[in-house]
Amino acid sequence: MAVKSLEDLFLETVKDIYYAEKKLLRALPKLAKHAKSPELKQAFQTHATETGVHVERLDEVFAELDRKPVGKKCAAMDGLVTEAEEIMEDIADPRALDAGLIAAAQAAEHYEIARYGTLACWARELGMKKAEKLLQKTLDEEKATDQKLSGLAESYINQQAA
Amino acid sequence: MAVKSLEDLFLETVKDIYYAEKKLLRALPKLAKHAKSPELKQAFQTHATETGVHVERLDEVFAELDRKPVGKKCAAMDGLVTEAEEIMEDIADPRALDAGLIAAAQAAEHYEIARYGTLACWARELGMKKAEKLLQKTLDEEKATDQKLSGLAESYINQQAA
Repeated sequence: MAVKSLEDLFLETVKDIYYAEKKLLRALPKLAKHAKSPELKQAFQTHATETGVHVERLDEVFAELDRKPVGKKCAAMDGLVTEAEEIMEDIADPRALDAGLIAAAQAAEHYEIARYGTLACWARELGMKKAEKLLQKTLDEEKATDQKLSGLAESYINQQAA
Repeated sequence: MAVKSLEDLFLETVKDIYYAEKKLLRALPKLAKHAKSPELKQAFQTHATETGVHVERLDEVFAELDRKPVGKKCAAMDGLVTEAEEIMEDIADPRALDAGLIAAAQAAEHYEIARYGTLACWARELGMKKAEKLLQKTLDEEKATDQKLSGLAESYINQQAA
């Protein structure tokens, strides 16, 4: 990192979430494939489409910074995706599998919620109006996905228990 | 992982957050030491004390499971702490440093919010009333810390810009 200012830190963090989004974009179809509940399968597919849009919005943020879109290895998201892969490989019981997939996806969502919350705040401070709007839009969608997954966790578990 | 049921998955996830909390417990005093703003320094110190209590609550959850408290390597939290260490080493500008420390801490908080949200839901499903209460209490405190850090990010940045 060569960070001398908030501007530099903003750029480094955009690179971090760019890498994280692309990593998630590759993982979500696998999660959809392994999910047992049709609703959960659908939720992962819908979020994969949304994630593609999130990547495009980050392309626009890079453009506003007059930089080429490029990712920077994000160990946290790598760890979260590895964990999701372990869940897909190791859990045979369908109830535990779906519960584990939801948990892994929510951890990834919360990583993104933290990052986009920070980036929207910094964009505001840096007077980057267009970037702020784009980042806030994605933040709202990540929060909505997290809420949807919480709802599925509750309802799916209740259904299984019934 | 030897996960055959939701009970197994619950235990594995408690081990994961136990490791993550202990890792954070060691990192927070370093964050407090490096923070430039007195309010941020204080916030990290207060959260270090709270984190000690969170570890004790997890000890009680292990007791309810009739298991010895033991952590399980959590790649996501390792990645988040490594990132915080890089920020402490690489950023000289005080405004960018504090902004970076807040961002790193909020990413860690959101990891914990995701985990405790999941665990409280599973404890309810598994009929573990005492564990559910303990996990919910910690979840509420992690959310409050995240809110406090958001407030500091806004006010500190506004103050610097004034």
